[in-house]
Amino acid sequence: MNRLHNDTFLRALLRQPTDYTPLWLMRQAGRYLPEYNETRARAGSFLKLCHSPSLATEVTLQPLARYDLDAAILFSDILTVPDAMGLGLYFADGEGPRFERPLREEWEIRALEVPDPYVHLGYVMDAVAEIRRALAGSVPLIGFSGSPFTLACYMVEGSGSDDFRHVKTMLYDRPDLLHHILEVNARAVTDYLNAQIESGAQAVMIFDTWGGALAHRAYREFSLRYLEQVVSGLKREHDGHRVPSVVFTKGGGQWLESIAAIGCDAVGLDWTVDPAQARARVGDRVALQGNLDPMVLLASPAAVAAQAREVLDAFGPAPGHVFNLGHGISQRTPPENVAVLVDTVHAYSRKQRSGNAEQPAGA
Amino acid sequence: MNRLHNDTFLRALLRQPTDYTPLWLMRQAGRYLPEYNETRARAGSFLKLCHSPSLATEVTLQPLARYDLDAAILFSDILTVPDAMGLGLYFADGEGPRFERPLREEWEIRALEVPDPYVHLGYVMDAVAEIRRALAGSVPLIGFSGSPFTLACYMVEGSGSDDFRHVKTMLYDRPDLLHHILEVNARAVTDYLNAQIESGAQAVMIFDTWGGALAHRAYREFSLRYLEQVVSGLKREHDGHRVPSVVFTKGGGQWLESIAAIGCDAVGLDWTVDPAQARARVGDRVALQGNLDPMVLLASPAAVAAQAREVLDAFGPAPGHVFNLGHGISQRTPPENVAVLVDTVHAYSRKQRSGNAEQPAGA
Repeated sequence: MNRLHNDTFLRALLRQPTDYTPLWLMRQAGRYLPEYNETRARAGSFLKLCHSPSLATEVTLQPLARYDLDAAILFSDILTVPDAMGLGLYFADGEGPRFERPLREEWEIRALEVPDPYVHLGYVMDAVAEIRRALAGSVPLIGFSGSPFTLACYMVEGSGSDDFRHVKTMLYDRPDLLHHILEVNARAVTDYLNAQIESGAQAVMIFDTWGGALAHRAYREFSLRYLEQVVSGLKREHDGHRVPSVVFTKGGGQWLESIAAIGCDAVGLDWTVDPAQARARVGDRVALQGNLDPMVLLASPAAVAAQAREVLDAFGPAPGHVFNLGHGISQRTPPENVAVLVDTVHAYSRKQRSGNAEQPAGA
Repeated sequence: MNRLHNDTFLRALLRQPTDYTPLWLMRQAGRYLPEYNETRARAGSFLKLCHSPSLATEVTLQPLARYDLDAAILFSDILTVPDAMGLGLYFADGEGPRFERPLREEWEIRALEVPDPYVHLGYVMDAVAEIRRALAGSVPLIGFSGSPFTLACYMVEGSGSDDFRHVKTMLYDRPDLLHHILEVNARAVTDYLNAQIESGAQAVMIFDTWGGALAHRAYREFSLRYLEQVVSGLKREHDGHRVPSVVFTKGGGQWLESIAAIGCDAVGLDWTVDPAQARARVGDRVALQGNLDPMVLLASPAAVAAQAREVLDAFGPAPGHVFNLGHGISQRTPPENVAVLVDTVHAYSRKQRSGNAEQPAGA
């Protein structure tokens, strides 16, 4: 069980040499795959899919059956933690996630408690264990969580938002209340990720999806600080193996040096970031993960291959790159384009290492 | 007519010393003002408001009657240019702008023509002239346009978008077609802004609202290049006065050095940018405009004042700062908070210059 047939992904996260650049795709088990939609229809809803360890295992493995991906990622929702805190997660038809009881009153905020992941999120730990068994050592399993700030956005807004006015009004008027939520979230996320590690996750990723909506100072005080708290509380090893961590702040390209300094093993890059500049800025402190524009996958196979090669050229063949998109894959992606992407990344990065790739076209 | 009572804004754009930091607010004539909503209701629709020079003049002046702002900005829509190209701009109830005939077919794209601003956009030039007369030299009038790329986003998508999939698919599959649209747009925007200058605009601003959605290389090739083309074609002087230009790419914080190098007089900053770092990166090549998080204005008056002082501290008292928000003002802003903001910026920046302000709290 502990012996991996393909540990390229884990080695790249630890900046060790690999024969090629490993890749996986954010939201790789998702609506662009007909088999995913079939399973989801069978489950009855997205939440039922998340709550069933066997169905979560089924969809986690679907993209791996189709494509030669180098990692699996736990299929789950990023809002499981606040749901376990009692906020009442639900999905309205055709809309994003919502909470029945968003946090608006001080007494509600003061009453927040850190959920025990084995008690309140046992279905996630069961899924992690079942996926690990089903993977049978083929590729590593990534566990994940939303960041403390990203969870707080949903918890205070009660839904997605285009201006984050409730959480930002709290930030500017009652920073003490927001800090309290973030303290609780940071402990909850740490416990949740450590439980995933104990249940079998071989790497963990923290999605700071909304940190990039913050003003530069507020980012440090209300998002980065709690990301650091989570990272410093993570188990570094399990079962004799290092468990690398990845931190991804979407829209955080201006703050890469600071993110790279919080102790994580790798930093995720969105597609607006120039990989060569990113590497120059963070030095060799961390691995980098990214960063193809997900919209490339809606173009022709030839464009997919060309853009993938550009990303690989920009990162160069040095150790410490995990190929990914700069954001989750679009549901409109033709599945055959993903096959082109996977094959191009594997073949071209092998060539780069043997010195036979094209010269980079310049920045 | 040519003598300005208050030219603080223009001098700050040219990095000349001023007694205090001038300010204006993006979308300052807008739905947060009850008098605006009253005029708009009288006009019947947003587009009728834009098409009537006298009503456009009325709403342009409304925020200046309430607040001691240092500039007026032409009230208009950013999509007037593609509308003049024949795409058929309309507003569906409760939704953003849409085009009846978005650009999808090659023949439609090849048929695009640069509109004559005096013929097809005469109502805008009439508004500029009427606003200048009504301002009677009190403060300068800013003309504006959307950037070539931002206009292309709407022209190809046919509406706003959260993933820009149509325009990005064109970018990756048929860059020649997108370049053709951008060439036409760049010429159209240049002519449009020059006509505004000839009609009385004393400074111009180019809003690159969606450039920040592009991958780093695509930004240079498909947005920045055409911004540069527009800037280099702008009239630098009119009526014996310099006409400064401001370029604002929302989400462009990573590319400030490149934006500052295209020949504009000032660069707009959104709220994610650290002003002290921005100044260090662009040197003294340009003035900087920004960058308070617009959501601050939804908080308490005390928070508004504190956050405004933080922005002023971060920019420091050196010449070359125009205070603004990092994005358009929210329709949910209480009008009294804008009064607090204006008074704080004027009073505190005077103190900064006399050396009596608080020391910056550090970055």
